[in-house]
Amino acid sequence: MADGAAHKVVIIGGGFGGMLAAKALNKTPTEVTLIDRRNFHLFQPLLYQVATGALSPANIAAPLRSILKKQRNTRVLQGEVVGFDMAGKSVLLRDGARVPFDSLIVATGATHHYFGHDEWANHAPGLKTIEDATDIRRRVLSAFERAERATDPAERARLVTFVVVGGGPTGVEMAGAIIELAKYTLRADFRVINPATARVILIEGQTRVLGAFHEKLSRKAKDALEGMGVEVKLDCHVTAIEPDHILAKPDGGKAPAFRIDTETVVWAAGVKASPLGKLLADAIGGVEVGRGGHVPVNPDCTVANRPDVFVIGDLASCPGKDGKPLPGLAPVAMQQGEYVAGVIVRRLKGESPKGPFRYIDKGTMATIGRAKAVAESFGFKFSGYPAWLAWLFIHILYLARFENRVLVLFQWFFNYVTRNRAARLITNERPPETRSEIAPVR
Amino acid sequence: MADGAAHKVVIIGGGFGGMLAAKALNKTPTEVTLIDRRNFHLFQPLLYQVATGALSPANIAAPLRSILKKQRNTRVLQGEVVGFDMAGKSVLLRDGARVPFDSLIVATGATHHYFGHDEWANHAPGLKTIEDATDIRRRVLSAFERAERATDPAERARLVTFVVVGGGPTGVEMAGAIIELAKYTLRADFRVINPATARVILIEGQTRVLGAFHEKLSRKAKDALEGMGVEVKLDCHVTAIEPDHILAKPDGGKAPAFRIDTETVVWAAGVKASPLGKLLADAIGGVEVGRGGHVPVNPDCTVANRPDVFVIGDLASCPGKDGKPLPGLAPVAMQQGEYVAGVIVRRLKGESPKGPFRYIDKGTMATIGRAKAVAESFGFKFSGYPAWLAWLFIHILYLARFENRVLVLFQWFFNYVTRNRAARLITNERPPETRSEIAPVR
Repeated sequence: MADGAAHKVVIIGGGFGGMLAAKALNKTPTEVTLIDRRNFHLFQPLLYQVATGALSPANIAAPLRSILKKQRNTRVLQGEVVGFDMAGKSVLLRDGARVPFDSLIVATGATHHYFGHDEWANHAPGLKTIEDATDIRRRVLSAFERAERATDPAERARLVTFVVVGGGPTGVEMAGAIIELAKYTLRADFRVINPATARVILIEGQTRVLGAFHEKLSRKAKDALEGMGVEVKLDCHVTAIEPDHILAKPDGGKAPAFRIDTETVVWAAGVKASPLGKLLADAIGGVEVGRGGHVPVNPDCTVANRPDVFVIGDLASCPGKDGKPLPGLAPVAMQQGEYVAGVIVRRLKGESPKGPFRYIDKGTMATIGRAKAVAESFGFKFSGYPAWLAWLFIHILYLARFENRVLVLFQWFFNYVTRNRAARLITNERPPETRSEIAPVR
Repeated sequence: MADGAAHKVVIIGGGFGGMLAAKALNKTPTEVTLIDRRNFHLFQPLLYQVATGALSPANIAAPLRSILKKQRNTRVLQGEVVGFDMAGKSVLLRDGARVPFDSLIVATGATHHYFGHDEWANHAPGLKTIEDATDIRRRVLSAFERAERATDPAERARLVTFVVVGGGPTGVEMAGAIIELAKYTLRADFRVINPATARVILIEGQTRVLGAFHEKLSRKAKDALEGMGVEVKLDCHVTAIEPDHILAKPDGGKAPAFRIDTETVVWAAGVKASPLGKLLADAIGGVEVGRGGHVPVNPDCTVANRPDVFVIGDLASCPGKDGKPLPGLAPVAMQQGEYVAGVIVRRLKGESPKGPFRYIDKGTMATIGRAKAVAESFGFKFSGYPAWLAWLFIHILYLARFENRVLVLFQWFFNYVTRNRAARLITNERPPETRSEIAPVR
């Protein structure tokens, strides 16, 4: 660090971890640079609401510059990191620019993991980005449109069959939202088809949905889904995904495969770390990423023998109280972001170092359609309407900008009362001349 | 018409003309089929607000099925019309389906006209669809992001120079919105550049902006734009559009060309009719489309010797009181839609036919940024704050769904108070490996 120059903190990634770290460094003796490939902070847990047309992208995203504009010590760069110069302590961007750092926080998160079947990505989009969400929205709504025009009954049935792969919170929420869309929102919209007869099938590889929750809540979630008409297939492994069907093997993959004819599959079954993890590990040397590409970190979120390099959020493999890696959840990333900012500031002040990172589990929740949810918090499990209210309240609290909060609340209120989904637009269709198998819209 | 079967009305296009015709046929002895390539009705006059990040697409669009779901005699098909069978009285869709009609209303509107320079479309998008608007939004916001990272002063100046071609309401509104974005909304967001120094240049081929308005209002609009910092170049013809500059000739094209270095050009200078106009004219036979592709219609909006075929809205060339074709404005299309529905219903009831279509000009308006607008209505011209309030009120009234109205009002209220533009997301960027000159985002 040059004499007299402020301590440069470079944060890569403006998601939950990076954004909270940046905010925690406000009014500290640092110069913060936040780099992200996108210009906005995305509230990922609500992507499934964009995917089913309940919210617009702008309801769940806020421009990074807006959020940070009042932080005089912070600047935002939209750019893509392509390399690290560990000796020279700088980060390399795609256009050749070098951004020097004194401390580096890497928080680039996770992406979809297709367990070696990357070709499935064409037919089964995941739900990690805004474009994922509007793509799924287009596929789901177009399926109903095409079913209305179909003349072949087998084709029509196939079009109104929807498969969600993965029974974690994302999959559970998507399945519940699609069946609600079919059975309620679109109920009176069509003349040939009856959308309420749509099939929604949720496929999970473990023996229960919401495996990270308490058993009792897993059961309540399954009951709620089935009560709404979702077919829940547990202990089932998907073995093939084609444009017009999937194959899956029950009994943990030991029984013979069965086939589901469908043209709309949503992938919520696996994540792997951003490729920047491996890039960073190689640049540091002597660090091996884990199986999902996660970067192993020390108890204070630093990497190997580099006290100036931190990795947080979904990119990190950080041991929890029980020794197992902490889950890839938003509150983990948020707490790590604030923790790491505190570590840096204490060093600058010459104070004794902070203790190791301790995740405080304030609870997890998932929602299954209108006014149903499951939640556990500080050992209390609750479900049904109170859980749904808590879910609503906490999501709104988080949304970083006042306007987002009020608008989303407003839109939700309408959705709840009217069972409407007002952002039901089919956009970005390929024009007929350039159609590909990725966007089979007629 | 088969005995006992209801009168089949097929409407192609769910915009202002088609939608109002469909609504006017509610509870009439008809079977209505509305066909559109998209699944939503779009309020085009507010596209410029999506293009500058003030509103989300869903604020200005509503699903066609939602709007019409309570009309028991009406069904919606999402599909593309590719031909007409005039003898067999049916409409042909891309997937081979035939939709029979007794009366046909064609209302497919207009698209961009580049005056023989279709290659300009790559560098100068128009503003007619949702995708146009989010594309322009991406280009405008990305220009500021790239300027923040630019090292060459000439490149930086080029990046913060914006050109709008066309001084009609769309161009005027876009120019005002971009300068407002630059000078106010983004003011504190950047650390290297000062967005308030951005240049916005409006180029118009005639001697005044808003040529369809009264001269006094043209002058007020020009003054308002220049007061906000827009450079207005009248009597100027664009002769070249390249990725990094444009050329234009002043004095009506007689003086030598001058050059503006820019990477962001918005095209608001010309429209031509949808290609379905020519398809229809050829199918009927003996009908020639006009220079812009418009279909000439009789005083009752029928075409040639086909009393069962109506063309309305921007697709039609319909003579007004003074014998000149009516302008391509929303209220014209709306009134024609209702008129044509009335013609059909009176025929079915055996009543004497309606008189010719008479457009009632209730006034036109354009807004130039925060609380400034110009309007004329029933001979009264007004501008400034009262005009802006009227503009706000009328747009909100129109928005077809209650929720849209309230949400848009809410979002506008926030924008007005905070000078914020909350939907400022850069979406659908091409990933680095597949970048093309159409999307030069770094």
